Amino acid sequence: MEANSCNIPASVGINVPARVNRETKPEASIVNVAGVEVGGTELIVIAGPCAVESQEQLFDTARSVKKWGARILRGGAFKPRSSPYSFQGLGEEGLKLLSAIREETGMPVVTEVMDTRQVQMVGKYADMLQIGSRNMQNYPLLKEVGMTRKPILLKRGMMATIEEFLLAAEYILSQGNENVILCERGIRTFETSTRNTLDLSAVPMLKRLTHLPVIVDPSHGTGIRWMVPAMAKAAVAAGADGLIMEVHYDPEKALCDGHQSLDLDEFAQLMSDLRKVAVAVDRKISVQSLSED
Amino acid sequence: MEANSCNIPASVGINVPARVNRETKPEASIVNVAGVEVGGTELIVIAGPCAVESQEQLFDTARSVKKWGARILRGGAFKPRSSPYSFQGLGEEGLKLLSAIREETGMPVVTEVMDTRQVQMVGKYADMLQIGSRNMQNYPLLKEVGMTRKPILLKRGMMATIEEFLLAAEYILSQGNENVILCERGIRTFETSTRNTLDLSAVPMLKRLTHLPVIVDPSHGTGIRWMVPAMAKAAVAAGADGLIMEVHYDPEKALCDGHQSLDLDEFAQLMSDLRKVAVAVDRKISVQSLSED
Amino acid sequence: MEANSCNIPASVGINVPARVNRETKPEASIVNVAGVEVGGTELIVIAGPCAVESQEQLFDTARSVKKWGARILRGGAFKPRSSPYSFQGLGEEGLKLLSAIREETGMPVVTEVMDTRQVQMVGKYADMLQIGSRNMQNYPLLKEVGMTRKPILLKRGMMATIEEFLLAAEYILSQGNENVILCERGIRTFETSTRNTLDLSAVPMLKRLTHLPVIVDPSHGTGIRWMVPAMAKAAVAAGADGLIMEVHYDPEKALCDGHQSLDLDEFAQLMSDLRKVAVAVDRKISVQSLSED
Amino acid sequence: MEANSCNIPASVGINVPARVNRETKPEASIVNVAGVEVGGTELIVIAGPCAVESQEQLFDTARSVKKWGARILRGGAFKPRSSPYSFQGLGEEGLKLLSAIREETGMPVVTEVMDTRQVQMVGKYADMLQIGSRNMQNYPLLKEVGMTRKPILLKRGMMATIEEFLLAAEYILSQGNENVILCERGIRTFETSTRNTLDLSAVPMLKRLTHLPVIVDPSHGTGIRWMVPAMAKAAVAAGADGLIMEVHYDPEKALCDGHQSLDLDEFAQLMSDLRKVAVAVDRKISVQSLSED
Repeated sequence: MEANSCNIPASVGINVPARVNRETKPEASIVNVAGVEVGGTELIVIAGPCAVESQEQLFDTARSVKKWGARILRGGAFKPRSSPYSFQGLGEEGLKLLSAIREETGMPVVTEVMDTRQVQMVGKYADMLQIGSRNMQNYPLLKEVGMTRKPILLKRGMMATIEEFLLAAEYILSQGNENVILCERGIRTFETSTRNTLDLSAVPMLKRLTHLPVIVDPSHGTGIRWMVPAMAKAAVAAGADGLIMEVHYDPEKALCDGHQSLDLDEFAQLMSDLRKVAVAVDRKISVQSLSED
Repeated sequence: MEANSCNIPASVGINVPARVNRETKPEASIVNVAGVEVGGTELIVIAGPCAVESQEQLFDTARSVKKWGARILRGGAFKPRSSPYSFQGLGEEGLKLLSAIREETGMPVVTEVMDTRQVQMVGKYADMLQIGSRNMQNYPLLKEVGMTRKPILLKRGMMATIEEFLLAAEYILSQGNENVILCERGIRTFETSTRNTLDLSAVPMLKRLTHLPVIVDPSHGTGIRWMVPAMAKAAVAAGADGLIMEVHYDPEKALCDGHQSLDLDEFAQLMSDLRKVAVAVDRKISVQSLSED
Repeated sequence: MEANSCNIPASVGINVPARVNRETKPEASIVNVAGVEVGGTELIVIAGPCAVESQEQLFDTARSVKKWGARILRGGAFKPRSSPYSFQGLGEEGLKLLSAIREETGMPVVTEVMDTRQVQMVGKYADMLQIGSRNMQNYPLLKEVGMTRKPILLKRGMMATIEEFLLAAEYILSQGNENVILCERGIRTFETSTRNTLDLSAVPMLKRLTHLPVIVDPSHGTGIRWMVPAMAKAAVAAGADGLIMEVHYDPEKALCDGHQSLDLDEFAQLMSDLRKVAVAVDRKISVQSLSED
Repeated sequence: MEANSCNIPASVGINVPARVNRETKPEASIVNVAGVEVGGTELIVIAGPCAVESQEQLFDTARSVKKWGARILRGGAFKPRSSPYSFQGLGEEGLKLLSAIREETGMPVVTEVMDTRQVQMVGKYADMLQIGSRNMQNYPLLKEVGMTRKPILLKRGMMATIEEFLLAAEYILSQGNENVILCERGIRTFETSTRNTLDLSAVPMLKRLTHLPVIVDPSHGTGIRWMVPAMAKAAVAAGADGLIMEVHYDPEKALCDGHQSLDLDEFAQLMSDLRKVAVAVDRKISVQSLSED
C-alpha cells in the first residue's frame, strides 16, 4: 500500500518563463489602457459587438454599454473567419468608426490585429491591440506587437496549455512590451454542447503563476447567449480581473456571433448582478455612468 | 457573404431523455437526503475525507465540517483506484465508522458503491449512494441502484458528454428511482496543469435541460488544494445547488487525495467566503452550527 | 539558445506496473483462446455481428466470416447502450446461440460481460470474455474476471491513457489470470467526423511496454463502414497482433452499429487485401478456410 | 426499442467547401513540385532535418536521404518555437544553404514560411512553401501564399477538425492557387505518452472529401524516434500519398527535434520496409537513387 498515493499527482509542473513569472515580480501588474487600469481592485468590463457592421450598430451599442458600466469598447474590424466566404470585417473603415465613437464616449477601444503588416496602422486607431485565439502562436505577430508599447490583449489559443499561453505572453514581453492582459476564452474539448469549454480554473492558476492581469471571455467560452450571465458571474467569483463580452443592439441581425451576443437589456441586467458578485469577492465594478452623460 | 453566419453554430442539439427532461417536469426536483433537501434555495455542502482511514480521522473531520456548516458527510469505504496496489479502502469496516459518526452528529452520509453485489449492503449504512466517475456508464450498477429508493449521487464520467450524463441518470430513473443528484467533477482534456478541467458551464446547461439538482466537486475538478476555494466560489456563482469537497484533518498524512483536500482551517474560511457569494446569487448556506453543539 | 531543446519532450514517462511489464517478461505472451493462439506470427481476425439478433443472422454471418479467414467469432449478448431505451441484447438466449454455432463451426467465441454477477454464467458459454470500453475501470469486474482462467479481451477506455490501460490489465493479472489481450478501439477527442479517433500509435507503444498481445478494433475506432478497410490495413502495418471487426449479413437491418459493420462481400475483399499487408510486415493471416468446409 | 439505433450516429456531417470538394472535381489532383508529382501512383517521401543548422549537417543529410529514395528535401530556416529563448532558425542564411544543396542534388526543397512579409523572399529559394500547424488558421498568411503559384504544404492544426482543415485549404484555393498538399501531423488529445496523437483516419476521410493530395508526418505525429517506422508504414497502408519525416545525420546533437529524428541508417532501413508496404496497397516508392550518383 502506498501511503498518500493518489491516482494522478497534483504537481503543476509548469516552467514559467522569466518575464511573466510572478516569482520574478510578486506584485500584480496593472495595465493602463488609455486611462483605464486593468488588474487592480476594480473589475473591468469590456463590451461591444463581435464585428463593427455600421455606424448605427456600433454607436448605439457603444453608448449603451458605457451607460451600464462597461469601461472599454470592443469591436472587430478585421475578422478571422473559418470560411473565406464569411464576412471578413469592414477593415480600416471599421477602425475609423471605432475611433469616432471613442472621441464621443471617451471609452478606450480594443480591436484585433491579424497581420504583421497591419500592426502600425491598427495601432493608430486602437488603444489596445487584440491577438486572437488562432494567432496565439503566430510568433512574428507576437514579436511585432511586442515592439510597440500598446497594451495587448492576448487570448488563449483554443488548444493551448497554460504553459504555452505564458510562453506566448513571454514573446511579447521579451520585445520590451510589458503591457499584456491575458484572456481565457474557452478551450476545445470533446464536449460539443457548448462552442468551447470555458476553463475557469485557468484564472486562479494564471493569477498564481504570473503577475499579468487575467480576464475572461464568456461569450466565446460558451458560444451560447443564455449561458453568458452564469459564466460571467462564475468568472468574477473565480478571481478574474475583468470580462470581455459581445453585446449587440440587435443580436438576431448580427453579421457575426449573434447567437452568443447579449442584447442591451440582458447586458444591463447582468452588470447589475455582477456588481453583487464582485462585492462578495472584495472587488468592485464601476457604477453605471448614466448620470455622467 | 452569409448573414448572421458564425464559425460554429450554437445549437445545443442534445436529445434529453424523457424522465430527466425539464420540459416534462418544469419545476426543480428536490432530493431529500435523510432530512437534508438538495435542490432548493439552500445551498448544500457535502464534506469529508476522500477515504475513511480510521475512527479518529473520520470523527475529528466530521465534527469539524459539521461545525462550519457542512450538511452531509462524505467518506469512501470502497475506493476505485487506478492501481491494484494502492489503498483500496476499509470496506465494510469503513461503513460502520460512517454509521457511528452519523449517529453522533446527525449528518447523513454519502459513500460510493462500485459493485452490483454490494448495493444492498452499502445501502444499509449509507443515506445516499455515490456512483463514481468511472462507473457512470456501468449500466448494471445504474439499474441496481435504480431499483432502490435511496438518493443517488451520480458523478459525471470524466469522458462523458452532457447527453451521456443525462442518459446515465435516465437509467436510474427508468427503474423507478427519481432521487438523483448530478455532480460535475471535471472532464479530461489536453490541459495537464490541473488533474481535470472543471466544466462549470455544465451547471447552467444541466439546470436548463433537467429538473434534477446539480452539484459540483471542485476537489476532483482541480486536483489541487489551493485551487479549491476559487472554484467552489465560481461553482456557486454559476448556479450550483451544492458542493462536495474533500476535507481532511491532516492532508499531508491522507492515504488518498491529500494533495486536493482542504484542512480544517481552510474549510472554515471557505465556508465563510461561500456564504457571501451565495447571497450575491440569491442563495443561502446554513449558518455555522457551532452553537448547536 | 538551448541546445537540443524541443517544443515538447519525448520522454514517455509511463510507470508500467510489474506483471504486464515487458521488462519483467521480455518475450511476447501468446494467449491461447480455445486453440487459437493470439500474439504469435499469425495475425488473428475476430469477426461477427455487434449484437446477436437471431439464429439466422448469427449463423449466416459466422459461417461466412469463417469461410474468409476469421479465426474467432464475436457477438454481443449483453449490450452496454447509452440509452436505457435502446436494444439491450438477447441475454442468455444470445449466449446459447453463440454456443451452438461454435459447436458447428469450431470457432471460439468472445462476448462481453458487464456485471460481476454474470461472470460465471457467461464463462460457461464463451471462450473469451470481453471487458468493454465503458468498464475498463470497473475494478470489481476486472478482479472478478481475474479470478477466472478464461482469456480476457480488455478494450481500452475511450478516454484512458496508455498508463491507465496497463493498470487495468494489471488488475486482472494481479488476481492470477495472465491471459489478457489488449484492444485499441479509438479514443475520444475533439474531432467529430469519426465516432472515435483510432489511436494506432498505441500499437507500437503497447508492444514496447508490455508482453501482452495487442489487437485493434477499426469498427468502433472509426464508426464508419467505408473507413474500416483502410484502418484495418493500417493497424496491421503498425504491428497489431490481430483485428476485431463487426460484420453483419445485412448491415442496413442491424439492430446495433449497422453503420460501422461490413457486409459479407466487403469482409471477403478486406481479408484478401489484409493478407498482402500482413506479408509486407512479416506476418501472415490464415488462408481462407472454404476448402475445409 | 429503436431499430438500427446506435450510440453515436456515423453521419460525417462535414460541409466541404467548393474548390477543395471532391464532388466538384472527382479526379485526384496531382501537385507538381519542381518536377516531382505528388498525388499519383508513386508515393513521395519528403525528408531532411527539422532545422537547417549548418552546411555540413544539411548537405550530409540531404545527400543521404536522396540516396535512399527521398524525392523532396525538407529543412526549416524560420522555426516557430514555443519559447522565445529557443533556437529560432538560421533565417535567410538557411534558405541559401537549402538552395545550394538543391543545385547539387536536384531535389526540390520545402521550407516553412511564418510571416506574410516573407512570402516573396522565401519563395525565391524554395520550391514549396510550408504552412505550419500553428499557422493553419493564420488567414492573412493563407491568402498571401494563395496569391503565389507555388505548391503549398498545409499542415493540419493540432486542434483543427477535418472541416476546419479543408476550410483553411479553401482559403488558399480561393486566391487562385490550387497547388495544395494536405498534411496530417497529429492532433492534441488527452494522451500524453506521445507528443501528439497521429490521426490516420484523417487519410481516408480527406481522400474521400477532397481531390487534394494527402501526406502524413509521423515525426511530429508521435514525437518519438522509435515510433516513426511503425507509423510511417501504417500511414502508407491507410492510403497516404506520401510522407514527410525528420532525418538528421546525428540526432543526438540536433538543435531541434532530435528526439523524433531518424538517423541515416534508420531512414535507409525504413525506406526498404516502406517499399514492401507500398506494393501491398498498389503504390510504389522510387528505387534508391544511389546508382545515379
